[in-house]
Amino acid sequence: MAASRTLRIGLIPGDGIGREVIPAGRRILEALPSSLGLKFSFVDLEAGFDTFKQTGVALPDRTVETLKKECDGALFGAVSSPVTATKGYSSPIVALRKKLDLYANVRPVKSVAPSAAYPDPIDLVTVRENTEDLYVKEERTYDTPDGPVAEAIKRISHKASTRIATIAGEIAARRARVRQGLGDTSKQAMVTVTHKSNVLPQTDGLFRSASFAALAAQRFQDAGVKVEEQIIDSMLYKLVLQPAYYDVIVAPNLYGDLLSDTAAALVSSLGLVPSANVGDGIVIGEPCHGSAPDIAGKGISNPIATLRSVALMLDFLDLEEAASKIYAAVDANLADGKLLTPDMGGKAKTDEVVEDVIRRLSG
Amino acid sequence: MAASRTLRIGLIPGDGIGREVIPAGRRILEALPSSLGLKFSFVDLEAGFDTFKQTGVALPDRTVETLKKECDGALFGAVSSPVTATKGYSSPIVALRKKLDLYANVRPVKSVAPSAAYPDPIDLVTVRENTEDLYVKEERTYDTPDGPVAEAIKRISHKASTRIATIAGEIAARRARVRQGLGDTSKQAMVTVTHKSNVLPQTDGLFRSASFAALAAQRFQDAGVKVEEQIIDSMLYKLVLQPAYYDVIVAPNLYGDLLSDTAAALVSSLGLVPSANVGDGIVIGEPCHGSAPDIAGKGISNPIATLRSVALMLDFLDLEEAASKIYAAVDANLADGKLLTPDMGGKAKTDEVVEDVIRRLSG
Ligand SMILES: CC(C)[C@H](C(=O)O)[C@@H](O)C(=O)O
Ligand SMILES: CC(C)[C@H](C(=O)O)[C@@H](O)C(=O)O
Repeated sequence: MAASRTLRIGLIPGDGIGREVIPAGRRILEALPSSLGLKFSFVDLEAGFDTFKQTGVALPDRTVETLKKECDGALFGAVSSPVTATKGYSSPIVALRKKLDLYANVRPVKSVAPSAAYPDPIDLVTVRENTEDLYVKEERTYDTPDGPVAEAIKRISHKASTRIATIAGEIAARRARVRQGLGDTSKQAMVTVTHKSNVLPQTDGLFRSASFAALAAQRFQDAGVKVEEQIIDSMLYKLVLQPAYYDVIVAPNLYGDLLSDTAAALVSSLGLVPSANVGDGIVIGEPCHGSAPDIAGKGISNPIATLRSVALMLDFLDLEEAASKIYAAVDANLADGKLLTPDMGGKAKTDEVVEDVIRRLSG
Repeated sequence: MAASRTLRIGLIPGDGIGREVIPAGRRILEALPSSLGLKFSFVDLEAGFDTFKQTGVALPDRTVETLKKECDGALFGAVSSPVTATKGYSSPIVALRKKLDLYANVRPVKSVAPSAAYPDPIDLVTVRENTEDLYVKEERTYDTPDGPVAEAIKRISHKASTRIATIAGEIAARRARVRQGLGDTSKQAMVTVTHKSNVLPQTDGLFRSASFAALAAQRFQDAGVKVEEQIIDSMLYKLVLQPAYYDVIVAPNLYGDLLSDTAAALVSSLGLVPSANVGDGIVIGEPCHGSAPDIAGKGISNPIATLRSVALMLDFLDLEEAASKIYAAVDANLADGKLLTPDMGGKAKTDEVVEDVIRRLSG
């Protein structure tokens, strides 16, 4: 039996259904078989629009400090953003990504079953740069005789581009190893670099050249990682027409945001899609869906994205055995298809899905 | 019989299959029934990567000046952009849009037939702002101890946002009138405003507020035009999941680029999707596809996007009767399904499709 290891996990439910899915994430961690030798201690942390309305601050310092000083990992639910600018409010998840230097946002998308539109299995990961691009949020507005004009900075650095392409290469190599272990020869390891360097030769050109340079590393070549590129508009077009072709897609922040939502639509529901915000020394799992105010409080939100985010967090904490147990239990729940939440066409409650997955954990 | 009117049309084939589809556009104009009282004179104009390689200039002054001084409309084929920055080269279509102030890029997307994934007909238009956003192409690069950093400006003005939202409102009102004329009650007139104002409150916030203000005009209310909004990532998600819901989508330049390619994928081929670059006093029709070097010269490129771009150009020149004849002939060709190019699963040559559409013109 493995030596026991205790991990400290921050729980940040945020707003809306975040308050329903994050407890589900905690339950699955507590239900992991004891043979894995893992223990978890939890700390509840605040952030979100509700927090902002109560305290005037969307991301309290205590949350950031506790994550930095105490936590190995964390789970973040969702936040409700007001569409109109609200004085003093800005998205706490965007701020958290920057404050903790969570430089990679990793979003695997996997189809449940073949469909008429997509007979071949979809199994891809978008690896999104998570700290810069238009998300530096440097904007200004000035007046002209024709009325106001606003400008924002899109910033792309060699450093962040190299770092994100490197982790994309590592993910592609790891996925290839896993497929090889399963005797799955359906796909070659591949990273597709996306950009719009035909319009933005300096910024996106830098992302492109830094990515290609990083991915040319000998260890990626040894792992057989092929490197391709797609202009972002063609990428979206091809993603919709032949998603099964893709393996790992690396993108600057904004394109990554758009690609991962589009890929989620191809597998029918954001309720299935997990993400991990990866930094040095900390990983924050985060379901890709939003706070879904329309269904919040009804106990019918889909916990799958969060359960998979827990697994993804464990993956990046190098706890692959624990991670694969959760993935397998979730896949078995979906394949069985009897306990599904309404977004998947079923009638199950959040808790019933969680209990079904937990039952399958020890299996 | 209507009084005869002569229109001067610039023909800019550009690169690759642009050289095959633009002649098809000319042929359809020449084949319009004489009862419409329309005459066309043509002027051949150069632009593109081939032009750049031959002359060192991608968009010759003569092309711009002739369009400005002589032409009512024009047809633009496609350009091959090198992916890597090429000294002195930048996309002539982006430059043309700015030099002629072609402020709106209008891209209607329509499904040919119900599919398993999309049983309801898709019939939407993206109205893309065409002169600013990241397409101002103002970039700079500087060195830091961590290597180079590049920045680009995203510029959004009240003026351009108001102008694009206004034309979107007009298009929605016109579409509603056409549907009403056909007794089609399937859809209410609607404009969906897309942006990312949760991350970019100043730039995208300005696009949002200027759009809502413009669309609140009494004439749009009288025409029953409903106004909604979607954050761009959710927009792409919803577009893939329920495209039949949407009518007119208005977007800043870059999001519009991405939305129109994604929408094209939903109807299976960019080879079907036309566009019009609309300015004051000139309209340039342009198929949405690229120069397709892989099939260039084989005579098998799909002319439908260009034929529809001709119709769209005529629409914006207020020649709706001529436009609707071309739309109907193209729809009849597609509905018949016997003469289709390879991208549509058929075996027809470009010329055979053009001849089939021309045969149906007088029908
Ligand atoms: C809520 C929003 C700021 C966020 C983003 O744009 O990154 C979300 O869309 C996401 O993808 O996590
Ligand atoms: C070729 C490229 C510069 C262009 C654009 O981004 O506008 C194209 O993708 C388009 O949509 O017309």
